[in-house]
Amino acid sequence: MRIDIITVLPELLKSPFEASILKRAIEANLVEVHFHNLRDYTSDKHKSVDDTQFGGGAGMVMMVEPIDKCISALKAQRTYDEIIYMTPDGETLKQGMANHLSLKENIIILCGHYKGVDQRVRDQFITREISIGDYVLSGGELGAAVLCDAIIRLIPGVLGNETSALTDSFQDNLLAPPIYTKPRDYKGWKVPELLFSGNLPEIDKWREDQAYERTKIRRPDLLEE
Amino acid sequence: MRIDIITVLPELLKSPFEASILKRAIEANLVEVHFHNLRDYTSDKHKSVDDTQFGGGAGMVMMVEPIDKCISALKAQRTYDEIIYMTPDGETLKQGMANHLSLKENIIILCGHYKGVDQRVRDQFITREISIGDYVLSGGELGAAVLCDAIIRLIPGVLGNETSALTDSFQDNLLAPPIYTKPRDYKGWKVPELLFSGNLPEIDKWREDQAYERTKIRRPDLLEE
Repeated sequence: MRIDIITVLPELLKSPFEASILKRAIEANLVEVHFHNLRDYTSDKHKSVDDTQFGGGAGMVMMVEPIDKCISALKAQRTYDEIIYMTPDGETLKQGMANHLSLKENIIILCGHYKGVDQRVRDQFITREISIGDYVLSGGELGAAVLCDAIIRLIPGVLGNETSALTDSFQDNLLAPPIYTKPRDYKGWKVPELLFSGNLPEIDKWREDQAYERTKIRRPDLLEE
Repeated sequence: MRIDIITVLPELLKSPFEASILKRAIEANLVEVHFHNLRDYTSDKHKSVDDTQFGGGAGMVMMVEPIDKCISALKAQRTYDEIIYMTPDGETLKQGMANHLSLKENIIILCGHYKGVDQRVRDQFITREISIGDYVLSGGELGAAVLCDAIIRLIPGVLGNETSALTDSFQDNLLAPPIYTKPRDYKGWKVPELLFSGNLPEIDKWREDQAYERTKIRRPDLLEE
């Protein structure tokens, strides 16, 4: 899989891709991630990527031309499955969408910054608009990092133990059950006895019940889906 | 405002706090952000922070002791309004929650990694569990960065122009209307004429209508709230 990220702030995105699972996935050539600085696609000497809004109003708007040039240069080199724009009014990211996107070959992710991109970019180039949740961030960069992390960890071979992703929250519309590790007793706070019993069918049943109960209390909406 | 982030991967979190709006907010002393490496609170020579699950199963679990030591050390120095754990089964972050948290004085954010933390940590120390969305990430670090960005940009003085945050999506349960900037005509793709008319009441009305229409089509659930 190849991911091209278009941004005015490549330096903001650096560290999440240089640590932990994303780093290992990149080093193992399971995914290629390329950052493209939008300022490299400007034509004026100030390397402007944004300008004021037509019709007035606070906040700067990212211009069509540099984005057009960058996307066109990438599309001239290969075919892309999706050209994604990160925006709070896009389709909300869910685990199912991450599963689906993890099967793609080439994707572009465009990060908005300031007030967002000129509407014509969305109308002409974007195939999918994605939001990571109902809140506003200073830019699309963290959203892009979140989307990449959610996708990349699902690529076969990225996680050490593949069953680990399958028992995560949301993969079966249930939240994960409580988990415990050593010591058995810490300051009088004890681990449920059953977990030391060695009775695996009983433990499995307890976990299923706990997952169901937790989902019923915290997220009844998931059970209705 | 002071935010203490507890993590096993402080290096992953670095770049988002060293660029753009978060960097400026920190430099202007509008917010203090401190990273605490959980390995500094371990007592064995391997600096272990995790161990296998009781009852069996894939994935490592973060142990109680280092987290207890780190949180206790912080609480000995000041009072915290919230001790937050980032987890996919927590309460889903929304703009209203970000508004609310941006008024707090001191908060701790604990990032889970691997399979998550021992349930006793959640039972004993955590006052609030937050999820940034219905998907699974390799750790709580990106969630913590997202939460910090959503909160910090709302602190008065952080954004250059305060009205800019007020016209964002979600602040009034409406998505933002389309925005445009120069040039008026790009490859035949034109900006709506009305936006050059100078007729501000008409422009405001158009934007309101567009915001409403976009919300009705994309997110009718927001209009029901």
